[in-house]
Amino acid sequence: MIARRQSTARASAKKLRAPVLRFRMRVSDGERIAVGPGKIALLEAIGNTGSITAAAKSLDMSYRRAWLLLDELNRSLARPAVDSAKGGLQGGGSSLTDAGRQLIALYRRIEKRAEAACRDDIAELMGLLVR
Amino acid sequence: MIARRQSTARASAKKLRAPVLRFRMRVSDGERIAVGPGKIALLEAIGNTGSITAAAKSLDMSYRRAWLLLDELNRSLARPAVDSAKGGLQGGGSSLTDAGRQLIALYRRIEKRAEAACRDDIAELMGLLVR
Repeated sequence: MIARRQSTARASAKKLRAPVLRFRMRVSDGERIAVGPGKIALLEAIGNTGSITAAAKSLDMSYRRAWLLLDELNRSLARPAVDSAKGGLQGGGSSLTDAGRQLIALYRRIEKRAEAACRDDIAELMGLLVR
Repeated sequence: MIARRQSTARASAKKLRAPVLRFRMRVSDGERIAVGPGKIALLEAIGNTGSITAAAKSLDMSYRRAWLLLDELNRSLARPAVDSAKGGLQGGGSSLTDAGRQLIALYRRIEKRAEAACRDDIAELMGLLVR
């Protein structure tokens, strides 16, 4: 059964798309991951939805997990990435700060530049894979 | 207690080392990770130790897990990365093939080039962190 699922998955993966190489950057501070792909995706989702609850839901993440990631991120940053309004009849929304937008932009720019700079090596590495 | 442990960890991390940014590349093929940092580290350990058992031990990994990673990797590659000798009085050793050595070299070269190409953006991103 497992073998069958795997071979089906492989066959469809082959049909649907070629292998892709992705850079995932992590900034770590001792043992702790200060900034990584999960936190950046969460910030982007908050920017798109205007709320931590909606952002967490869009990433299939619990509110608690999203809150913990943001708390950890904000402690790592000189200025917080997210501004949460308090209270109001419908509860407060959340929005990105300038520091938050800057962090996302830099992170995504680094990913793009890294891929562009390594295009030839990446092609060579992909050439080692099954076709 | 948790708060105390965290603040101690933060204080010692601050003393011991500045935050570092690391690129971790993954080649994925549909849902499957074909090549990633764990498999590359395992190949390097096999190159250093000459055996899957010793390599797994040096990475604090079970033999079974190492074997599964290698099996998955070998299926992704046009030519296998590891050559395992069979039998013999002391059991067979394992060594890297040319394809395995080439894969490691390319993977590590891409990491270095990516970091070099993004040095300024990385410095700017690090500037957003607590000092």
